[in-house]
Amino acid sequence: MKAVRMVEEGRPLQMQEVPVPRVGETDVLVRIEAAGICHSDVHYRAGTSPVGGLPQTLGHEIAGIVESVGSKVQETAVGDRVCLHYLVTCGECHYCRTGHEQFCVEGKMLGKHLDGGYAEFISVPARNAVPLADAVSFEHGAALMCSSSTSFHALRKGRLEPGETVAVFGAGGLGMSAIQLARAFGALQVLAVDIHPSRLELAERYGAVPVNASLEDPVTEIRRLTGGRGVDVALEVIGLRETMEQAVQSLAILGRAVLAGIADRPFEIDSYSELLGREAEVIGSSDHLLHEMPLLLELARQGALDDLDAVILTETRMPDRR
Amino acid sequence: MKAVRMVEEGRPLQMQEVPVPRVGETDVLVRIEAAGICHSDVHYRAGTSPVGGLPQTLGHEIAGIVESVGSKVQETAVGDRVCLHYLVTCGECHYCRTGHEQFCVEGKMLGKHLDGGYAEFISVPARNAVPLADAVSFEHGAALMCSSSTSFHALRKGRLEPGETVAVFGAGGLGMSAIQLARAFGALQVLAVDIHPSRLELAERYGAVPVNASLEDPVTEIRRLTGGRGVDVALEVIGLRETMEQAVQSLAILGRAVLAGIADRPFEIDSYSELLGREAEVIGSSDHLLHEMPLLLELARQGALDDLDAVILTETRMPDRR
Amino acid sequence: MKAVRMVEEGRPLQMQEVPVPRVGETDVLVRIEAAGICHSDVHYRAGTSPVGGLPQTLGHEIAGIVESVGSKVQETAVGDRVCLHYLVTCGECHYCRTGHEQFCVEGKMLGKHLDGGYAEFISVPARNAVPLADAVSFEHGAALMCSSSTSFHALRKGRLEPGETVAVFGAGGLGMSAIQLARAFGALQVLAVDIHPSRLELAERYGAVPVNASLEDPVTEIRRLTGGRGVDVALEVIGLRETMEQAVQSLAILGRAVLAGIADRPFEIDSYSELLGREAEVIGSSDHLLHEMPLLLELARQGALDDLDAVILTETRMPDRR
Amino acid sequence: MKAVRMVEEGRPLQMQEVPVPRVGETDVLVRIEAAGICHSDVHYRAGTSPVGGLPQTLGHEIAGIVESVGSKVQETAVGDRVCLHYLVTCGECHYCRTGHEQFCVEGKMLGKHLDGGYAEFISVPARNAVPLADAVSFEHGAALMCSSSTSFHALRKGRLEPGETVAVFGAGGLGMSAIQLARAFGALQVLAVDIHPSRLELAERYGAVPVNASLEDPVTEIRRLTGGRGVDVALEVIGLRETMEQAVQSLAILGRAVLAGIADRPFEIDSYSELLGREAEVIGSSDHLLHEMPLLLELARQGALDDLDAVILTETRMPDRR
Repeated sequence: MKAVRMVEEGRPLQMQEVPVPRVGETDVLVRIEAAGICHSDVHYRAGTSPVGGLPQTLGHEIAGIVESVGSKVQETAVGDRVCLHYLVTCGECHYCRTGHEQFCVEGKMLGKHLDGGYAEFISVPARNAVPLADAVSFEHGAALMCSSSTSFHALRKGRLEPGETVAVFGAGGLGMSAIQLARAFGALQVLAVDIHPSRLELAERYGAVPVNASLEDPVTEIRRLTGGRGVDVALEVIGLRETMEQAVQSLAILGRAVLAGIADRPFEIDSYSELLGREAEVIGSSDHLLHEMPLLLELARQGALDDLDAVILTETRMPDRR
Repeated sequence: MKAVRMVEEGRPLQMQEVPVPRVGETDVLVRIEAAGICHSDVHYRAGTSPVGGLPQTLGHEIAGIVESVGSKVQETAVGDRVCLHYLVTCGECHYCRTGHEQFCVEGKMLGKHLDGGYAEFISVPARNAVPLADAVSFEHGAALMCSSSTSFHALRKGRLEPGETVAVFGAGGLGMSAIQLARAFGALQVLAVDIHPSRLELAERYGAVPVNASLEDPVTEIRRLTGGRGVDVALEVIGLRETMEQAVQSLAILGRAVLAGIADRPFEIDSYSELLGREAEVIGSSDHLLHEMPLLLELARQGALDDLDAVILTETRMPDRR
Repeated sequence: MKAVRMVEEGRPLQMQEVPVPRVGETDVLVRIEAAGICHSDVHYRAGTSPVGGLPQTLGHEIAGIVESVGSKVQETAVGDRVCLHYLVTCGECHYCRTGHEQFCVEGKMLGKHLDGGYAEFISVPARNAVPLADAVSFEHGAALMCSSSTSFHALRKGRLEPGETVAVFGAGGLGMSAIQLARAFGALQVLAVDIHPSRLELAERYGAVPVNASLEDPVTEIRRLTGGRGVDVALEVIGLRETMEQAVQSLAILGRAVLAGIADRPFEIDSYSELLGREAEVIGSSDHLLHEMPLLLELARQGALDDLDAVILTETRMPDRR
Repeated sequence: MKAVRMVEEGRPLQMQEVPVPRVGETDVLVRIEAAGICHSDVHYRAGTSPVGGLPQTLGHEIAGIVESVGSKVQETAVGDRVCLHYLVTCGECHYCRTGHEQFCVEGKMLGKHLDGGYAEFISVPARNAVPLADAVSFEHGAALMCSSSTSFHALRKGRLEPGETVAVFGAGGLGMSAIQLARAFGALQVLAVDIHPSRLELAERYGAVPVNASLEDPVTEIRRLTGGRGVDVALEVIGLRETMEQAVQSLAILGRAVLAGIADRPFEIDSYSELLGREAEVIGSSDHLLHEMPLLLELARQGALDDLDAVILTETRMPDRR
């Protein structure tokens, strides 16, 4: 089969002919219908976030159709539409057994440590294949496996309650999902902070109040828009020092800043005014969990999560899949 | 009556003759038996943390005997031994009504905004007078109203669970209380970080494993002592940039750093390695709550909280009270 | 002014001429625009739930316009549209101070212990007056103060999380609110159990799956509709022994049955199969809290809560108010 | 090897000669040093709780020494002292992956569905073998795997907080553990309800206040001892209709009754006075979790959990093991 692979750090990916992967007795083989390109791939290709070994087929946002199943697989059948949770975990360690599989001591990621989705087929453990309803496109399903799920997990880490207010720093793929999810979970006011007018316009269509950070100080503006209170949850999905600091500074009393963007520089907190004086919290959020996926997919099926990412993804769909 | 008052910023306190305060119908008049000197008083006297007005009787760690009660007071009687919760709050605002009275919109502090405990008598709302068992000295009761209660509240903010590990940065009055409380609440391992051998020795007597930060890097040592895991809760009660950063760096996966020390400089966090990569949290803790006091006092009565602070306090007891 | 009052147990209410109530310095006088008739009034009138004293103006679902304010009132002004939280509490006791004012040791209820809304004017503490947006009718605002708020509080007691499934036993005023609220807070599937086809039809319009308990066993049907799992939250708002038992029996593993309906007979639980075998919970829910009201009112303003109750209420609006 | 096996329902167990079990590549073979007799065994033997198949070696409270390990086992070595978590689970299903392995869809229990501890050797998955410190006897370690762990899990289900009050209904093995654990976790007052004076005497030695249910009504007495409040957590470990009802009736406002005893008859709740009027909760607790065991064992090592059960167990130790 064809696969698009990373063969050397810093070099373009290459289309190669590789064997169709073998299917273990608890695995499923999936014919890939859509595979998203994630910003993380840039880091893998540059070598700043090392992959498991070379050559490596990248791609961790994957959806497709089950082509065959291992002898012990029961829940999944040939022909099922599925999308793939990208983290393959042991099921034995403390973290797997307590609902924190991102920290699995043997965890491996599709498209980073294991061959991924830029190929015609992939073999994964059956439990990583999440049913995809007919009403949700493969492209949307693939995108849900990474950006939307990261936003969903981050909102859960932030302990968002119905009736609270949320500020989302960064109105890209993750942010747009976060806006829709926060609304679907009962947030009364969602503020979207970005510097691109077109993104802010889209955020507004999804029910957010836009805050243009290139025209005004977002912290001041967020306080103004919340009657001086600040927000209950501030979600940072960009990974910039400035926006992380702004997220913390935007909090209300008892507010929580959730950091989900990957930054390469530290940021500063004034503990007295920003944390103690408000009993505020700063929370790291990492990836997402397999058991969160069915909810996301159902929200997508019910129409509460737009297929924005799918639109973006469509252009990246492998043109030569068949 | 006699009162020791702040009359001017930066000047020594003065002993003055002032009227015995009047007692409103829901107030109690307390004959002061012990009043602690808190480190915060230094800030008030220096003017770096402004008091409500001058002259001002300082002192917010107070215990004594009820001398008289207002006409509507029912729960408290003349002759009762009591210690005084130092925050006087409105009972009407959102924060008062949801269990977060530290953020009362009209909150005033004894010994800062209202006349405090460096005097022969004080008048306070009856609800601020917490019963003090005979088995607990006035000195200990006074100290419980500030340092132990701050530690207690901070451990609750850190969501400490039985079986977890705790590191306490700073083995002074607050830290020593935190060590004893963490043990009393089922923490399996408590590490005490300080630079004073005598404090570390005392901490060890209270059941902590000592970490001498002047001899070894506390983060490295904490990781070594926890088998590489780090701690579930790190409590910082000093207010130094270095120890706040160390607290965050000492965390285990899903760990929580609680900051309760007042710092005047910001500190730095590497969000990726320190927060996201562990789903760790940094939490500000502010003061404590009236309804937390009966538990603290009962712990002291049962002997689970040593009267260390009382020893220290004894020397500061007003010599001319009678 | 005119007031409709209960003068004797078991006798019809009487229209009487009474003085306009006086306004204390922290009170507001409200000209009543809408007052709902609650099922509880039946119990008060029958004497099965005793009122504070006779004669007593009933009515605890109240909305209107501020006519005058006491000398110390700041947040509320003459002419404001408001609806009234019906519980008047002390603000001093443990329960008031920890966010559980329903258990206030001195709590009194408008229309039961204090004169209520079946009158031209009412005087209440200013903090009980919640701002009512222009977009929400007085009738709807009045209804929100009792049935919708009880449902809201009950869902919070049930710790409903986004993505969970809910069964509502009883599709009347409370139930219909619960259905809408559960949907607004991210419940993926809401089942409505009732015996009235017209109510089930309306429930379906609000996004619920109808379960007709007169045609099929609701427990069996709920298990069928949830793929055998049962529901995460079962909310009982009727107060019948049968439906309380069915609510418990309908639970999934780790499910929570919230009982909010007032029953006069005990019900039975098979602890092994129904609780232990699923680690299920049965939770009592009582009234609601002032600080929950702004969220409800904002949801109504945003259109997430239909004014169904208002439709019902309109007919009960006092015809002779002016 | 020798094994004591159930061969027929209702008949005495038989000593049989059976092969030493084989050890899979992720298993460990344990030479059994102590095996407790649990009350549940009575139900298995009577056929009221069916075992997996016959003949079946019973015994699910097991401790011993690792005799050999499978080829892929890394954490456990020959010669290690271990005790055995009795639930063997799949690690793949939703419940395993979210920290609720008691509900594993393929869960099997040692000594019920799989051969158990009334034998010279047992083979179990390596992850079920929990390290046992030298300071804790095999007998105590075995007992910790069932009664103490059930109590521990039940207290966690009850969300016990430091400073709360607890009533334990039933001062046998489970109850005595619950008393000690509640004290170790910061409960300020623990009441023990039983009808046997000798048990109540022992409970008192562990720090409980005794309530003799054959001399006084326990609900009345609990209210008296708590100043009318009732208890925050009531733990029922007997499984009797009467004591389950008393547990619920003993609750304070916002209290939680945890049911961990297996009953064969339903019990009654008066929802209005017992649940709604207090916002009380009734919670089922089932078994315990592997990841809870290290804490229990460490508490035993530190001396916070007495080896009472071990004393009882000693007599049941297999006399012919060597």
